[in-house]
Amino acid sequence: MKRSNRLVILTEFFMENPRKHIQLPFFVDLCETTKSSISEDLDIIDNVFKTQGLGYLERTTGAGGGVKYIPEISLEKSSQFIEELRKELQDASRILPGGYLYMSDILGNPKLVREIGRIFASRFSKLDIDVVVTVATKGIPLAYAVASFLEVPVVIVRRDPKVTEGSSVSINYVSGSSRKIQTMVLPKRSLKEGSNVCIIDDFMKAGGTINGMISLLSEFNAHVKAIGVLAEADDEEEERIVTNYTSLIKITDLDLIHKKIEVLAGNFLEDVL
Amino acid sequence: MKRSNRLVILTEFFMENPRKHIQLPFFVDLCETTKSSISEDLDIIDNVFKTQGLGYLERTTGAGGGVKYIPEISLEKSSQFIEELRKELQDASRILPGGYLYMSDILGNPKLVREIGRIFASRFSKLDIDVVVTVATKGIPLAYAVASFLEVPVVIVRRDPKVTEGSSVSINYVSGSSRKIQTMVLPKRSLKEGSNVCIIDDFMKAGGTINGMISLLSEFNAHVKAIGVLAEADDEEEERIVTNYTSLIKITDLDLIHKKIEVLAGNFLEDVL
Repeated sequence: MKRSNRLVILTEFFMENPRKHIQLPFFVDLCETTKSSISEDLDIIDNVFKTQGLGYLERTTGAGGGVKYIPEISLEKSSQFIEELRKELQDASRILPGGYLYMSDILGNPKLVREIGRIFASRFSKLDIDVVVTVATKGIPLAYAVASFLEVPVVIVRRDPKVTEGSSVSINYVSGSSRKIQTMVLPKRSLKEGSNVCIIDDFMKAGGTINGMISLLSEFNAHVKAIGVLAEADDEEEERIVTNYTSLIKITDLDLIHKKIEVLAGNFLEDVL
Repeated sequence: MKRSNRLVILTEFFMENPRKHIQLPFFVDLCETTKSSISEDLDIIDNVFKTQGLGYLERTTGAGGGVKYIPEISLEKSSQFIEELRKELQDASRILPGGYLYMSDILGNPKLVREIGRIFASRFSKLDIDVVVTVATKGIPLAYAVASFLEVPVVIVRRDPKVTEGSSVSINYVSGSSRKIQTMVLPKRSLKEGSNVCIIDDFMKAGGTINGMISLLSEFNAHVKAIGVLAEADDEEEERIVTNYTSLIKITDLDLIHKKIEVLAGNFLEDVL
């Protein structure tokens, strides 16, 4: 097979299989060529990926050696994306009763969701995450986007125990905004004991929901390695109970009466400055 | 820029931007090259995509002309995937009380979910779908996977009205399995009148839930162009009320007492034979 064809096949393969360890003989067969040609192809692809801020190819030598595509996004591209999102969200018509923000159009756009996933996955790339955990419903697409770049499964915590999932562990927690006692459930067979977990959600006020997830996950002896939320909002009535998190967007000044809103970049960018 | 580098950049771009119409000058700038070079690159990529069963590049000429990547998956690859899924699901330990099947591990795997999305999107490719609609919770990842290949947004019907979404339309429907009256809600601003809709869900028994979605969507004057379900199951007590759907998997013989199950390929493959 000619180099030009090989480069298309290999690039497509890496895009569809992030973080998958591949031994070179697999590519030698796939492309009907020699090991040294594949090796040169990988150099070209690695170089372009790096130049374009798309990540890199991680190569290992020796027995069982091979190559793995680690997707990343450059800080420059992340900042640019966050800035566009910030402008988009800073629109008074998005204010909803109760001090919420209408974000369903953003969360309903697979392309934007995928970019958000890429940004979080890039930040959490070296944390040896085993599984991404979210709570139904709105965080689900974000969780899948993050997981697809980390090449790990998603586990969904539910607020209603469904009969279809077998035996489960549940906890009660106090919701920050409504002050009500709520329930969270996770089927027993859905999460291995001692997993390294990344929690993803769309929105965080005081952090009651995420704190509930942390409690539930401790029942599975999970290690919460990272917490990513798309948007955080100050809750004047309550102090934040979750502190170690990464947010892309921060809503600081939501004024229901005067229909005004201020949207800033989240701590994602602060952390690296 | 050299051809080898251009091919990596262009392939990556098409993978990340399915169905996006791009005029050639964009690529000329991106790759710092000439229009005729880009044109040759596109020939190479189109050719590899077709040979590998990944879809094709749709090119239009004249003013405003350009190129668009239409992702598809070959029938051969689809059949192979469905056969593997069928074997995986035909496992008696998956049987849950109530005649349900444990599929959370499949639905929690972003790679598998993406493949399922690619298969449905490929089948529904020419239907001019404007939006993918699903109902919370389990169908959500599948809906996003389908939508990402069709380059359209996702709208999620909820069973509980959430305060955070503004005014909404709701309907009551009778659930096939529980015979209970249930509610479905869709925020008014989430769906444009007269949209071409593709309904996606994970599981269908008698079809009460999907029928409920159809009723709700008729309130928005939507045109239901396609219905895709991952798995359908016979419900002995009830006749199916939804008939025009596409399923990948069919569960025919779920025997709770003897812990036996039979899983067949769905009508996806029948339709083309």
